[in-house]
Amino acid sequence: MTDAGPTTDGESPAVDYDRDPAAYRHWRLEIDADDPAVAWVILDVDPDGGLVPGYELKMNSYDLGVDIELYDITQRLRFCHPGVKAVVLTSATDRNFCAGANIRMLAGSPHPWKVNFCKFTNETRNGIEDATAHSGQTWIAAVNGTAAGGGYELALACEQILLIDDNSSTVALPEVPLLGVLPGTGGLTRVTDKRRVRKDRADVFATKPEGIGGRQAVEWRLVDEVIPKRRWDETVRERATAAAAESRRLPGGDGIALPPLDRTETADGITYRHVRAAFDRDRGLVEITVDGPDGGVPTSIERVRELGADFWPLAMTRELDDLILRLRSNEQELGTWVIRTRGDVEDALAFEHLIEQRSSSDWLAGEIRHYFKRTLKRLDVTSRSLIALIEPGSCFAGALLELALACDRQYMLDGTLDEDDSEQGDEAQIMLTASNFGAFPMGNGVTRLASRFHGDDDHVAKLRQETGRRITARDALELGLVTDAPDDIDWDDEVRIMLEERASMSPDALTGMEANHRFVGPETMESRIFGRLTAWQNWIFVRPNASGPEGALRKYGTGRRADFDRRRV
Amino acid sequence: MTDAGPTTDGESPAVDYDRDPAAYRHWRLEIDADDPAVAWVILDVDPDGGLVPGYELKMNSYDLGVDIELYDITQRLRFCHPGVKAVVLTSATDRNFCAGANIRMLAGSPHPWKVNFCKFTNETRNGIEDATAHSGQTWIAAVNGTAAGGGYELALACEQILLIDDNSSTVALPEVPLLGVLPGTGGLTRVTDKRRVRKDRADVFATKPEGIGGRQAVEWRLVDEVIPKRRWDETVRERATAAAAESRRLPGGDGIALPPLDRTETADGITYRHVRAAFDRDRGLVEITVDGPDGGVPTSIERVRELGADFWPLAMTRELDDLILRLRSNEQELGTWVIRTRGDVEDALAFEHLIEQRSSSDWLAGEIRHYFKRTLKRLDVTSRSLIALIEPGSCFAGALLELALACDRQYMLDGTLDEDDSEQGDEAQIMLTASNFGAFPMGNGVTRLASRFHGDDDHVAKLRQETGRRITARDALELGLVTDAPDDIDWDDEVRIMLEERASMSPDALTGMEANHRFVGPETMESRIFGRLTAWQNWIFVRPNASGPEGALRKYGTGRRADFDRRRV
Repeated sequence: MTDAGPTTDGESPAVDYDRDPAAYRHWRLEIDADDPAVAWVILDVDPDGGLVPGYELKMNSYDLGVDIELYDITQRLRFCHPGVKAVVLTSATDRNFCAGANIRMLAGSPHPWKVNFCKFTNETRNGIEDATAHSGQTWIAAVNGTAAGGGYELALACEQILLIDDNSSTVALPEVPLLGVLPGTGGLTRVTDKRRVRKDRADVFATKPEGIGGRQAVEWRLVDEVIPKRRWDETVRERATAAAAESRRLPGGDGIALPPLDRTETADGITYRHVRAAFDRDRGLVEITVDGPDGGVPTSIERVRELGADFWPLAMTRELDDLILRLRSNEQELGTWVIRTRGDVEDALAFEHLIEQRSSSDWLAGEIRHYFKRTLKRLDVTSRSLIALIEPGSCFAGALLELALACDRQYMLDGTLDEDDSEQGDEAQIMLTASNFGAFPMGNGVTRLASRFHGDDDHVAKLRQETGRRITARDALELGLVTDAPDDIDWDDEVRIMLEERASMSPDALTGMEANHRFVGPETMESRIFGRLTAWQNWIFVRPNASGPEGALRKYGTGRRADFDRRRV
Repeated sequence: MTDAGPTTDGESPAVDYDRDPAAYRHWRLEIDADDPAVAWVILDVDPDGGLVPGYELKMNSYDLGVDIELYDITQRLRFCHPGVKAVVLTSATDRNFCAGANIRMLAGSPHPWKVNFCKFTNETRNGIEDATAHSGQTWIAAVNGTAAGGGYELALACEQILLIDDNSSTVALPEVPLLGVLPGTGGLTRVTDKRRVRKDRADVFATKPEGIGGRQAVEWRLVDEVIPKRRWDETVRERATAAAAESRRLPGGDGIALPPLDRTETADGITYRHVRAAFDRDRGLVEITVDGPDGGVPTSIERVRELGADFWPLAMTRELDDLILRLRSNEQELGTWVIRTRGDVEDALAFEHLIEQRSSSDWLAGEIRHYFKRTLKRLDVTSRSLIALIEPGSCFAGALLELALACDRQYMLDGTLDEDDSEQGDEAQIMLTASNFGAFPMGNGVTRLASRFHGDDDHVAKLRQETGRRITARDALELGLVTDAPDDIDWDDEVRIMLEERASMSPDALTGMEANHRFVGPETMESRIFGRLTAWQNWIFVRPNASGPEGALRKYGTGRRADFDRRRV
């Protein structure tokens, strides 16, 4: 193949997630000159700005690099532009809103790249919905041209979809008929579950490459409004102003800056100020340590605002978020993440208390909580085995305890690590706080405790009684909060053997197993997207009918038809 | 490979689903001599009795043939042995309950065979749960030896799991660590969702090849009881007797016979008494026609019992069930099923009325309803495009209307087919009855109407008002009951083009799309098994880490380790 995409040897290039608004190549973020409560997010893809060589980003099609900028925009809107209450997502080009993911990029990408790309784009779209639902920043898609595939899925992530009526623009999901894959960013699920399109119509729509526009698009609920071209600009503005007026964006002063992260990368790991990751390539794992705060808690929310991105909870969350993204993209063979914390429980709780107190009255406190929530959700859908090691000196309390609960297993040392240092206070301890009972729901809408004890509400109620108590290993085991609690004699061996065993298993089987186990309990649109839709998409991506030399993804644009194995599986 | 399994060329052999209890090779079905309310279902696999050459069914491992017999048993228990109120599932061999699906069979099977095998076994286990929940036939697993993989999954389908305490027998899900695949018959989901095993423990259990027995198996809720060997026989019997005593099995006289189906197969189709399937290999489709009753309705339930398997609703359901299974296994390249009915609406409704009136007081009427329900569920999870064509002379009313609602799309002719014959009464009509509002729930627990109009309960309530009315094409379109209603001039072309377009699309993408669209709305354990777990399993099955020459499935038993691509996807 000449259009081999990202790489020719099946390896993926290293991905960097840092972005600077001054250097966006594909988007413009503009605060409206007349109404500072309205922001314009304008897609204007640079065709030559692909993240890796081998494809041209025609027709506002996107690759991972375009989406990384969009993610950066969503974060900056929430932290740097607190006055924004409505966000209009539109295209710089008339008649062409967005053509979706670039096909040559997809066709030429190795399987892990495809899957990771879809995961990240899904998370970014969930983030758009999160901003609408929780931050009073209502996203409106102003679809000023055809929105196809991922382009329409971008619109679907918005609260309102306005479509221009120019006798040609449509919304479409052409993936199934043209590319032999599914819409990869939640399209099928959002059409039925969010837009409530009747499922036989959803079937017609998702097999109709030219899409649907005009009155029928409204009748079928694919869009909220079609607007004549002559009234387009004023109507879009009216809708944005109205959405901003209804916003419940919290007050609390000016935005903060999000400067580049302080990060050191070596062959053996990544070090941030509060988060460290040490690679162990022989054992196929990463040892991640999250440090608690290294100073006292600010005395006021004003002081928090002064600290801005240096405020520990935000700084730590940004680092953890960046680390998760980098490890996923760049360290695919490190299949187990071992997660530890280090720090003082009381200090960590003081910070948490400050945020919790203010998160429903101050925008910055609220944003920090929701950002940590989203970062935990990234962990939940990360295809790595997650193991929490709870040792003396750790600070798995409240919000940080969620890190452990997000793991597939939790091991807690019963005793002390150093024989000479066996005082009571040096033992590992964990603590439940009010945060564990609702502040950080998973994608399926329930807390990690409710998912862990699915079907046993009485036990969750009992755990509420334990809030604020220092829980030692034996009690934690008794309460079901940890998987095992080896004593200091067994600890090293048990942990070592467990990690060796994990590393010996099939990476694919572990991914499938973990994806099933982590989402015990109820389902939501979000969990259905990651659980059901993504799993099917992964299967389709790896099949010859999509990705083989004669598959639909590879034949697209060649003028030749794919040669399908017609057996239904 | 020398152990290529079912076939060497990637084609699957034709599968026959007829079974005769007198000729079971792998199971014994025994009605207890002392207590006729208790049946014993005893697994005693004939190692040389594999469905296709190439593997030996050691250690009570099973292949599709073993499971087809089990399905036959579940059906005969319900229809031929109405006095049975508790079913004990056990093994003929001490210390070995069941080793699960045969690995050499799996390793050597083409991908579609693996997937179809898992689908059928899943449906049979769901049928066991259905018998427990709805037929007063409570299944009890008497695990008298180690139950591994699919063996434990068989036990999980039962209402109670009793495990012998002989210091060696365990229950285990060794698929992930030993085979690099997932448990294929709902194991992961039932462990967490049905048995309520805590998810970190589920992770430990599903990665522990030797399994868990004794007290820990009870503590973790993997089994209900461990019973010392010396008290085994009497305790199992006690539990069975107790379950039978609590049964709500309906009364209603003796069982009926289920004689072999009257079926004619040619290269071009399959014909039964009430159901016909015509193959169109050029267009990649099957035209299925279900006939309504050809005689008057019986005047009493006693007469129904006399008719037995000749009673139209039962006869038609058996034929449809058999057809679905055969087409799935044996006609994989016929990717679209076009479904029609022929007959008199009033006649069909008279039969339905008789069943509905008695289905909560007479076991036979109840069994017929539940069997049609299960057959519709088979359609829901069938990986073929399902298109209902509603034409003049059809009888899509009540229960038969569910056939149309199970389809991905419904087309209804507005007018008459024959120009000379355009009287009002000759137009196509459909009818809603009470059956459409609860008698035949989908696997996700809601009716097909509720799924179709997910989120619009008001419309479902409005449709209830239409019950019993003959609805013509234009009204059906208005009510949202059909996808389109072309007139007689457009009908042929519109249908032809639609079917051609469908046949041109990627079979994989259609399968993934349909699996997502069909289960709009809530989720249940059953829908999670088919939606989430199956999709992940299909992905894993097709990956080299499982099924490639160096994959875990192929290396199992060779003494050599699989050589994994360690990249996490």
